[in-house]
Amino acid sequence: MYFLDNASTTKPFDEIKDLYDECAQNFYNPSALYDKAVLVRKKIETARKNICKYIGGEEGTLYFTASATEANNMAISSVKYHSKELVVSALEHPAVYEVAKSFQNAGVSVKFLDYTSNGITIEEIKSKVTKNTALVSMMHVSNETGIINDIKLLTKEIKKINPKIIVHVDGVQAFGKIPVDLMDLGVDMYTLSAHKIHGLKGVGALWVKNHVNVAPIIYGGGQESGVRSGTENVLGILAFELAAKKVSSDVFKNAEIARKQKQTIIDGLNKNNVKYVINGDSCSPYILSISVDGLRGEVLVHSLEKYGIYIATGSACSSKKTENRALENLGRTPSQIKGSIRISFSAYNNYDLTEVADIIAKEINKIVKTIKG
Amino acid sequence: MYFLDNASTTKPFDEIKDLYDECAQNFYNPSALYDKAVLVRKKIETARKNICKYIGGEEGTLYFTASATEANNMAISSVKYHSKELVVSALEHPAVYEVAKSFQNAGVSVKFLDYTSNGITIEEIKSKVTKNTALVSMMHVSNETGIINDIKLLTKEIKKINPKIIVHVDGVQAFGKIPVDLMDLGVDMYTLSAHKIHGLKGVGALWVKNHVNVAPIIYGGGQESGVRSGTENVLGILAFELAAKKVSSDVFKNAEIARKQKQTIIDGLNKNNVKYVINGDSCSPYILSISVDGLRGEVLVHSLEKYGIYIATGSACSSKKTENRALENLGRTPSQIKGSIRISFSAYNNYDLTEVADIIAKEINKIVKTIKG
Repeated sequence: MYFLDNASTTKPFDEIKDLYDECAQNFYNPSALYDKAVLVRKKIETARKNICKYIGGEEGTLYFTASATEANNMAISSVKYHSKELVVSALEHPAVYEVAKSFQNAGVSVKFLDYTSNGITIEEIKSKVTKNTALVSMMHVSNETGIINDIKLLTKEIKKINPKIIVHVDGVQAFGKIPVDLMDLGVDMYTLSAHKIHGLKGVGALWVKNHVNVAPIIYGGGQESGVRSGTENVLGILAFELAAKKVSSDVFKNAEIARKQKQTIIDGLNKNNVKYVINGDSCSPYILSISVDGLRGEVLVHSLEKYGIYIATGSACSSKKTENRALENLGRTPSQIKGSIRISFSAYNNYDLTEVADIIAKEINKIVKTIKG
Repeated sequence: MYFLDNASTTKPFDEIKDLYDECAQNFYNPSALYDKAVLVRKKIETARKNICKYIGGEEGTLYFTASATEANNMAISSVKYHSKELVVSALEHPAVYEVAKSFQNAGVSVKFLDYTSNGITIEEIKSKVTKNTALVSMMHVSNETGIINDIKLLTKEIKKINPKIIVHVDGVQAFGKIPVDLMDLGVDMYTLSAHKIHGLKGVGALWVKNHVNVAPIIYGGGQESGVRSGTENVLGILAFELAAKKVSSDVFKNAEIARKQKQTIIDGLNKNNVKYVINGDSCSPYILSISVDGLRGEVLVHSLEKYGIYIATGSACSSKKTENRALENLGRTPSQIKGSIRISFSAYNNYDLTEVADIIAKEINKIVKTIKG
């Protein structure tokens, strides 16, 4: 099997199985008073501190959630927009885009930042962000194209306009893949996901800088310092810590493995004369998004599954939606958008992809020929 | 070890370990298009239907969440309170109480239903619920005292006042422990938790009757029919299904085991002349809440942990809070409230508790003697 849809989810690290056994044995509610429960609570606190360390976020706190989606919702809902504006990038993950839309429906003024193939530009920031902006939300790495935003530069520009503007970054496709140092980036909030870095599904986190306000969207027993109530997903949190430690200690080595895998696919496309465009210029080594005029992405997905090769059309998280804001934003035609695929890598699936690249390229050509006639 | 805090959380069933292996192997994102991901999506849909069946809720849908807390928040947030009232019982779990408080702070008219030792009365419903009430939220079984509400009777009374009033019930301490048949109860929304029935932490669900509106509190990729976005916690959901099947098929047999365990503790208290009152008259066999004048609950918790006996003071979920609405509502004095403990059972920890009862009783007497001098 060749799993090339790692931007959608990843296989949990084998070591997490031992954590499962440990958590099933020490199943106590972290809120209980007795010694064994206190030990569980301490493990969660250690995980929280360690993950902060791995992202260079010691001057802030991490709040565990059930998903990056929830973390993004929390970030954007935390800010009071009364006579203020919300600015989000046009190709945000639905978790940001849809919550921004819901705020827009509720009367908040929302502006959308356009992308270039090199990400959001300083000019775009200057033209959309004003002194009256309350929060700006951007992705660190686009989940659909892999385009990397220069978050440090953009944040500096935003803070120049008004240092009180909260900068929230969805780092789901960045952490563990490109270097992430939150104090250096200068952001106020940062979203993480566990299952994109070989942790378990059902866990995300929102990092919040000290002295930045965050408000709950879920009320209850007061867990996570009252910011996010509900009994903690102990196994999910400890697995997140384990995965975060592994991926953050090998960022450069792993990126090189991903880069080589990506190049192998590109070489295969070129060798077979596939007529494609790459969506994005400064991109993550982990994501290859291409558009092929006359292809149907979903037809390719199904024809490749017969070979045990798994890729995506757009973002799996929004695969049920027909629009594709990311590719429209890059000026792709409707035909190119229908013919778009995303191939995404992991250093922990260290395949030789030479043959796979050949199969993908030949299947693309076959489908284009059939469709174009 | 004697784990007698099963109302706080429970040990996952051993069989869930096999599910862990299966999910780690089939780790695909349920939203992806390829065959292997579609199989995962189908498993989630089967789990959804099966759990509906186990609660007699075929004429409705189940939405998976990360906790019962989130499900309670969703239920109460779904209703439009514009010039309408919200009515919740005074001793609701913080997940309901705190969200009701947040609505109250936002200007919604909120009324609180008082309890008797037999639960909420019809008179109380008549005096608080009006034609202008939008939603009533009650617990099926109180997590702190085990008091059972006659949900069928109360729902009938509410619907007599206005059939449009939405009735939401938190069934976390009821499902799998007392018979639950949602169509018979006549409610509109019902909350479940996985980790209270030997499933995993990090999963809950809100059941919603057909044609009853439910609105998202988390926006994004459109999972759970758009009602609750975020990549699904596949392992947690499948473990929930497994646990729900087991507990719902043995409700009567298991309740008898719990009843005997509870009686053994009561016998031990009586034999040792402990001066206690039981909090509640019509109670779940799974929960024994008592108040002892002159006791300190947390001192007892810590003295028992030395024997490997684990009990709770109040609800573990709110153990950090000092107030106790449930016991105040039953007329307990501050001294009695400080001296309150909760012992909660599971049929799957089928201990002989004769000796344990003796130890608990003697420790209580010792502490009371020390404190009273």
